Amino acid sequence: MKNGLLMVYTGNGKGKTTAALGQVFRALGHGMKVCVIQFIKGSWKYGELTSADRFEDLLEVHVRGRGFTWQSEDLEKDIEVARDAWEFAKERINSGRFDLVVLDELTYLMSYKMVDAEEVVAFLKARPADLHVVVTGRDAPELLMDAADLVTEMREIKHHYNAGVKAKKGVEF
Amino acid sequence: MKNGLLMVYTGNGKGKTTAALGQVFRALGHGMKVCVIQFIKGSWKYGELTSADRFEDLLEVHVRGRGFTWQSEDLEKDIEVARDAWEFAKERINSGRFDLVVLDELTYLMSYKMVDAEEVVAFLKARPADLHVVVTGRDAPELLMDAADLVTEMREIKHHYNAGVKAKKGVEF
Repeated sequence: MKNGLLMVYTGNGKGKTTAALGQVFRALGHGMKVCVIQFIKGSWKYGELTSADRFEDLLEVHVRGRGFTWQSEDLEKDIEVARDAWEFAKERINSGRFDLVVLDELTYLMSYKMVDAEEVVAFLKARPADLHVVVTGRDAPELLMDAADLVTEMREIKHHYNAGVKAKKGVEF
Repeated sequence: MKNGLLMVYTGNGKGKTTAALGQVFRALGHGMKVCVIQFIKGSWKYGELTSADRFEDLLEVHVRGRGFTWQSEDLEKDIEVARDAWEFAKERINSGRFDLVVLDELTYLMSYKMVDAEEVVAFLKARPADLHVVVTGRDAPELLMDAADLVTEMREIKHHYNAGVKAKKGVEF
């Protein structure tokens, strides 16, 4: 039986990446080794990464993605980058060097069929038994949720963007 | 017009306090000064507080609450502690010393009528214009959600507790 948990933060609301970030700092507080892989450029921003500096001994953060596909002009390049990022993640997951691996926005790669959801889920199920994994992103596939120990949906009830307030430094990026 | 945002993380799912923690580390990454007040003992646990040690220069964490009321044998004492904690929070909010104040599990005090929701919301609305506030907890009152700039509901879709798996050190506490 596995000791490590597979946790999924999904839904259209704010707080998915933020919750993953909280999970990272909680684990670091226990002296756990953590690897964060960001599959979409920009989902972890300046503030997070600066805080991460104080944990150099325990934390690796990798930005392996490009921007969102619907802003892209080169879909083939996007797919190549996505697949390389997933291969990189697989290596990190199986390395035995970490207690927690965060796969930020990985669902996006599955939704856009850049990587195959079945392959991803099978790989995650076969991960080292003590490794905790957090996956974030909208529209988590059913298959992933079935395999997960914990699934939280973040539902947006109200957002100040809707009311025309601009994003605030230190709060949202 | 206020620059500071009022953000609420509510719902029955995991990730409310974790998202608040993420928000804290994001703000710290920007060099912002942060005060966390925990209204229920135990909602921020060992891991979080140890990570917080690396930010002594920017972060204050206060545990001002007792355990949950339904486990309590002294309701009057609980109410007294809750009211003191809220008075303490008011002082911190108006001190001008912070950029972000997190009021963790404050909704609980309102649900149990230990503090008056109308008074709380009126006070939060009248806070210093640049101060960001995060409130977490189940059953956020309508009044609070109306006043907020951002409300996210964390919905539990699946939880390993349900399947009889025990809480894991470094992941959940």
